Amino acid sequence: MIDCDVHQNFNRLQDLVPWLDPQYRDFVEHGGFNGLDLPNYPWVHPGGFTMNEAAPATGGVPGSDYETLREQLLDGQDVEYAILTGEEILNVSCLPHPQLAAALATAYNRWLTEQWLPRDQRLRGSLVVASQDAPRAAAEIRAFGEHPGIVQVLLSCGALTGYGDARYDPIFRAAVEMGLPVAMHVGAEGLGMNPPPTATGFPAYYVEWHTLLSTTVQSHLVSMLCRGTFARHPELRLVVIEAGVTWLPSLLWRLDANWKALRSEVPWVRSLPSETVRQQVRFTTQPMEQPADPRHLVEALRMVDGVEEMLMYASDYPHWDFDPVALVRNRLPREWRDAVMGENARALYRLPAAKPVAAPVPA
Amino acid sequence: MIDCDVHQNFNRLQDLVPWLDPQYRDFVEHGGFNGLDLPNYPWVHPGGFTMNEAAPATGGVPGSDYETLREQLLDGQDVEYAILTGEEILNVSCLPHPQLAAALATAYNRWLTEQWLPRDQRLRGSLVVASQDAPRAAAEIRAFGEHPGIVQVLLSCGALTGYGDARYDPIFRAAVEMGLPVAMHVGAEGLGMNPPPTATGFPAYYVEWHTLLSTTVQSHLVSMLCRGTFARHPELRLVVIEAGVTWLPSLLWRLDANWKALRSEVPWVRSLPSETVRQQVRFTTQPMEQPADPRHLVEALRMVDGVEEMLMYASDYPHWDFDPVALVRNRLPREWRDAVMGENARALYRLPAAKPVAAPVPA
Repeated sequence: MIDCDVHQNFNRLQDLVPWLDPQYRDFVEHGGFNGLDLPNYPWVHPGGFTMNEAAPATGGVPGSDYETLREQLLDGQDVEYAILTGEEILNVSCLPHPQLAAALATAYNRWLTEQWLPRDQRLRGSLVVASQDAPRAAAEIRAFGEHPGIVQVLLSCGALTGYGDARYDPIFRAAVEMGLPVAMHVGAEGLGMNPPPTATGFPAYYVEWHTLLSTTVQSHLVSMLCRGTFARHPELRLVVIEAGVTWLPSLLWRLDANWKALRSEVPWVRSLPSETVRQQVRFTTQPMEQPADPRHLVEALRMVDGVEEMLMYASDYPHWDFDPVALVRNRLPREWRDAVMGENARALYRLPAAKPVAAPVPA
Repeated sequence: MIDCDVHQNFNRLQDLVPWLDPQYRDFVEHGGFNGLDLPNYPWVHPGGFTMNEAAPATGGVPGSDYETLREQLLDGQDVEYAILTGEEILNVSCLPHPQLAAALATAYNRWLTEQWLPRDQRLRGSLVVASQDAPRAAAEIRAFGEHPGIVQVLLSCGALTGYGDARYDPIFRAAVEMGLPVAMHVGAEGLGMNPPPTATGFPAYYVEWHTLLSTTVQSHLVSMLCRGTFARHPELRLVVIEAGVTWLPSLLWRLDANWKALRSEVPWVRSLPSETVRQQVRFTTQPMEQPADPRHLVEALRMVDGVEEMLMYASDYPHWDFDPVALVRNRLPREWRDAVMGENARALYRLPAAKPVAAPVPA
């Protein structure tokens, strides 16, 4: 089983200082920088957005301690590979200062590759880049892209505009050159300089904000499809993380119909958008929707041709809405299980069959 | 057959001047006011967003001439009632000047009730209000609400914040008092002072903008559900217009699951959101999604309990993506047809069985 969304984290942004370019250390140490969740992260989960039981016994925030993560997730859920996706660092896309944002992403990537990936052969990393300066992000991708533990480039969904915009193209070009998929993870919408997270501004509650996160992903995906990003980069693979999946049929029906009627507006889009998505986009399962009638989940998914090749299991450990392996596996048709629970990710990320893992240390 | 979304229009905003409060006539006549589509309406449909064939032979914009509308729609599609929803006036919600916005809405409502509704017993009107000043809008609702031809209050989706926000409550209270449903119609997102139409700012193309319009509606609906608008006003009925329908199952699955987990954040929401939607919200069908496998449309709709009581046919005449009666009717299960094509709207709007209509004048 391969888990495609595991949030390891630092305890405090200050923990990255040893990996940070010296000219930016003052910003983090003495700048009153309260971390990247910022003083103005405005939606409060009433129980905390991470699972209390994931907090390390030795102190620190959930996801910050390798031993806890190993015990609870890698061993506890029998994970063959865990794709690390960071946590607070995803909010780097909200900073107006492009060089500071890029320096923080670089510090994170050094910390990830030096402090996390060497610890366990089951861990793989996502290279976080700051989209504010795409050429700089492309250089980051080329600098780290050959690291054997790095399996994808990671963008957060909070952005000034849709990722189809020309300014972002260097990121996709560099990722394709390095043979890496690009992942989009929800987060940082409406934070810092980013536009409000919905067309009606700022939702009042966490429950609203979280419900509507899938709409941010939809706007990026439609942007990339209409702007021709996938047509320009036929080898590009995009991974959509933590946005759920059942909104996809309706979106593709709308977009396919509109493309048929409005092709003259976007003549560079030469394939049916749903075909492009099938070929070039993958979706992690979490938070997997839970219809009152559980058959509706699979019926809805089957409305997307080839969906069994497009889905990849993710737990979202250690977030509050963690989807355990058994929950997801048992809701899928038997004939999809190997693909969704592991083989689609293995093919995408070119992961070898795992070597035997040392027996877990007794708790 | 009852058509719940018919766009009649004025030719130019200046046509409303005879109905406009004198103090605002200068704004429209001499203020360089280029209509409410504004110079900055930024998405251009390559073929024009109205059907060319709906332009009156005598000149003017589609929807501006009663005789053309009668011939093409009322007679041509055998309409028992047409619910008029205006056109350019919907953009009134983008104006920063609240008194000017309210005055324009009032002028439109006078024009609607004096120039359109008396012309044909099949026409019914939607009272347009400017949400910028909700107490003023509530007064408008009370002033016009007893007009026998007015069947609902109409808000455009372009707004500073979700319609669950407390500032809008006077509008819903007044509508309930007058026994009128409130309709939300897509439009005016990202225009004038309204926030960008997606979490990733301004889409580049009409095809993107139009595909993503359903997400604006989703944010308003989630806002009203989470803020308790429906719980505070159990007699309120909301009509969602021109946003399609198949996004609903996925949205309600996400919201129901989140509400179960996060009820403590919104304790005033006491019912499952999907139950509230079933009881208090209606959806017009257009633009009805067209899956490659047509069975998927009905399968997706059936995932919403009671959906056959929630849908109401709409043509969206004279827009480019007009859904003719036959197209919609033939895609619905036989046992839904009477309800969706007319009876749900008749019950909601309390429309009597139509009197016999004079035979159409030969063209």
